[in-house]
Amino acid sequence: MTNNIILLGHGSGGKLSHQLLDDVIIPRLSGLPQREQNDAAVLSHGGRRLAFTTDSYVVDPIFFPGGDIGDLAVNGTVNDLAMSGARPLYLTVGLILEEGLPVADLERVLDSMKAAAAAAGVAIVAGDTKVVPRGKADKIFINTAGIGVFDHDLEILGSGARVGDQILVNGTIGDHGMAVLAGREGLDLHSDIQSDTAPLHELVADLIAGVGRDLHVLRDPTRGGVATTLKEIALQSNVDLTLEEPALPVGEAVRGACAILGLDPLYVANEGKLLALLAPEAAGRALDIMHRHPQGRHAAIIGEVTGASAGKVYLRTAIGGLRAIEMLAGEQLPRIC
Amino acid sequence: MTNNIILLGHGSGGKLSHQLLDDVIIPRLSGLPQREQNDAAVLSHGGRRLAFTTDSYVVDPIFFPGGDIGDLAVNGTVNDLAMSGARPLYLTVGLILEEGLPVADLERVLDSMKAAAAAAGVAIVAGDTKVVPRGKADKIFINTAGIGVFDHDLEILGSGARVGDQILVNGTIGDHGMAVLAGREGLDLHSDIQSDTAPLHELVADLIAGVGRDLHVLRDPTRGGVATTLKEIALQSNVDLTLEEPALPVGEAVRGACAILGLDPLYVANEGKLLALLAPEAAGRALDIMHRHPQGRHAAIIGEVTGASAGKVYLRTAIGGLRAIEMLAGEQLPRIC
Ligand SMILES: Nc1ncnc2c1ncn2[C@@H]1O[C@H](COP(=O)(O)OP(=O)(O)OP(=O)(O)O)[C@@H](O)[C@H]1O
Ligand SMILES: Nc1ncnc2c1ncn2[C@@H]1O[C@H](COP(=O)(O)OP(=O)(O)OP(=O)(O)O)[C@@H](O)[C@H]1O
Ligand SMILES: [Mg+2]
Ligand SMILES: [Mg+2]
Ligand SMILES: [Mg+2]
Ligand SMILES: [Mg+2]
Ligand SMILES: [Mg+2]
Ligand SMILES: [Mg+2]
Repeated sequence: MTNNIILLGHGSGGKLSHQLLDDVIIPRLSGLPQREQNDAAVLSHGGRRLAFTTDSYVVDPIFFPGGDIGDLAVNGTVNDLAMSGARPLYLTVGLILEEGLPVADLERVLDSMKAAAAAAGVAIVAGDTKVVPRGKADKIFINTAGIGVFDHDLEILGSGARVGDQILVNGTIGDHGMAVLAGREGLDLHSDIQSDTAPLHELVADLIAGVGRDLHVLRDPTRGGVATTLKEIALQSNVDLTLEEPALPVGEAVRGACAILGLDPLYVANEGKLLALLAPEAAGRALDIMHRHPQGRHAAIIGEVTGASAGKVYLRTAIGGLRAIEMLAGEQLPRIC
Repeated sequence: MTNNIILLGHGSGGKLSHQLLDDVIIPRLSGLPQREQNDAAVLSHGGRRLAFTTDSYVVDPIFFPGGDIGDLAVNGTVNDLAMSGARPLYLTVGLILEEGLPVADLERVLDSMKAAAAAAGVAIVAGDTKVVPRGKADKIFINTAGIGVFDHDLEILGSGARVGDQILVNGTIGDHGMAVLAGREGLDLHSDIQSDTAPLHELVADLIAGVGRDLHVLRDPTRGGVATTLKEIALQSNVDLTLEEPALPVGEAVRGACAILGLDPLYVANEGKLLALLAPEAAGRALDIMHRHPQGRHAAIIGEVTGASAGKVYLRTAIGGLRAIEMLAGEQLPRIC
């Protein structure tokens, strides 16, 4: 790696994150080649498959429009399990609290975790609680790890994209990142942008029931946004993707706030969105399924797999230009999740 | 709860930790009664049992005599799985890095995790990496979550102690906590105390193979030390325990350092120790098994279950006095693990 200290960008989910993972972390810890790095690990136990995953949450502020660090931490791990095709069942919760945190704030976060766990049908079965002195953490950091099980024998992997596959997203993009920004002190965006934080496992179950083996790839475009996530999929599957810019669902308020701040919604984090790559003959059916689901009302087909090659992603603009899309560079929005 | 802000003591593993867990966290998150709070949760999947647990590590300093935050984080979760009687198999790793952390320090920690995982025979299958700005965390915090499987049908629970059970510890107590203290800047204890951080699953497997159903309780006396952990077991099992002070294995250097600092080794954290409660007829055999194992050379019988009652723990001193033992009060040693 070219840097000798950790930069904020190493947590962006973008280029620097991937560099840190590929050069420093993965070779030491998991040894998995990049194309096998998925949202959750799939393990086999007694002839049955299990999904296992984790995420830590350091979002600032801990309460933001549409959610807080608690429901974010539950939904995030539920979603990484769902992206592997698993049914989420059990979570652990690791809390790191800063000395001086008001107990009322902790209670509010825990109430929100409880509600999110109940809504997602997962049980919190174990946990851990540490406290560090004032100034050694920032209010509260939460880790969740999760286990899910499989009700089918499909393999849904980042490496599964095929030429011709249609790319679907289940709704508007950029809401979570812009809601967190709007929640930051001093940044009054005069907007009612709400985080999209939500569990996606039921939408996934509906898709699997409806299109089965035609569902090739699922991934939640969190840090790094839709652009970075599609670039990951293109690299894992060795395919080229083309996005149609006019087809991208972006809410008016998000579009406006992004314009003011010079941000591109394609790179802004989502917490209740998934990208699905499907065989073309199943795309219409998948879109209908999404439209009928509360988490998919604004779903759209946003592009397709246009070639089998070296992992390129292109954006076709409204006026027909073709622009290459790279992973998020630098740290657009630190501590967004 | 009587406090309205989080205090360092809420992370001690002692009285305040239990208050926070019982009054604020557990009612919202897991709903398990206190007597069912064990080192790992035991789940059932396709007719087979799985153990699932997590711990977050915030130890300061991150490198200390005998170990670092990396091997600590692997061994700690391996041990919580082992205490449920499970064979540890898979870990996830959640990293929270402070901006400015030298990459060389991260590499050293990861190398140590890799070595510890290899030594314990566990695979790191998924992870997450976040970065927070300078001053919003302290170098590196690590969460590990783990899954283990069962090779037998024993139920080893904190509620399993019976009158007459003998209490065994697998070696000297207080080493980890005192090693971390010795590693702190400005605290030159002129000692060679080393952390006891080590995986205990093989010792547990040997015990299970050797004494089977006569093994009633296992727990690793981490935060809060042997005293707090025995108090937890006494409360979970509704029994009274009596410890024999002269039987407690304490290294000379630890005894000396504790005397200088006014600490009681009974309350100092361990990271390579277990307490085992066994039927009296199996205690001698268990002690032999421990003595033959590298992790048990200084094992000793340190007390017994003396009554079925209200969760009292007594310490019989060298001169025959009987002193009641309570959980760790306040925060003896912050950020010890
Ligand atoms: N934030 C939390 N959410 C849910 N359960 C928790 C939480 N914190 C602790 N627990 C539960 O409380 C019990 C005690 O936890 P604790 O962390 O003290 O155990 P431990 O990991 O064995 O000890 P140590 O953390 O010192 O290694 C466990 O059953 C654990 O699952
Ligand atoms: N510290 C780590 N140790 C081992 N594997 C890691 C670590 N950090 C990330 N990974 C692996 O790298 C891949 C990408 O991780 P990443 O956290 O970006 O995915 P994600 O959780 O889907 O995204 P996000 O964290 O934005 O929600 C995953 O396969 C993950 O398991
Ligand atoms: Mg994901
Ligand atoms: Mg994630
Ligand atoms: Mg713990
Ligand atoms: Mg334990
Ligand atoms: Mg533990
Ligand atoms: Mg992640």
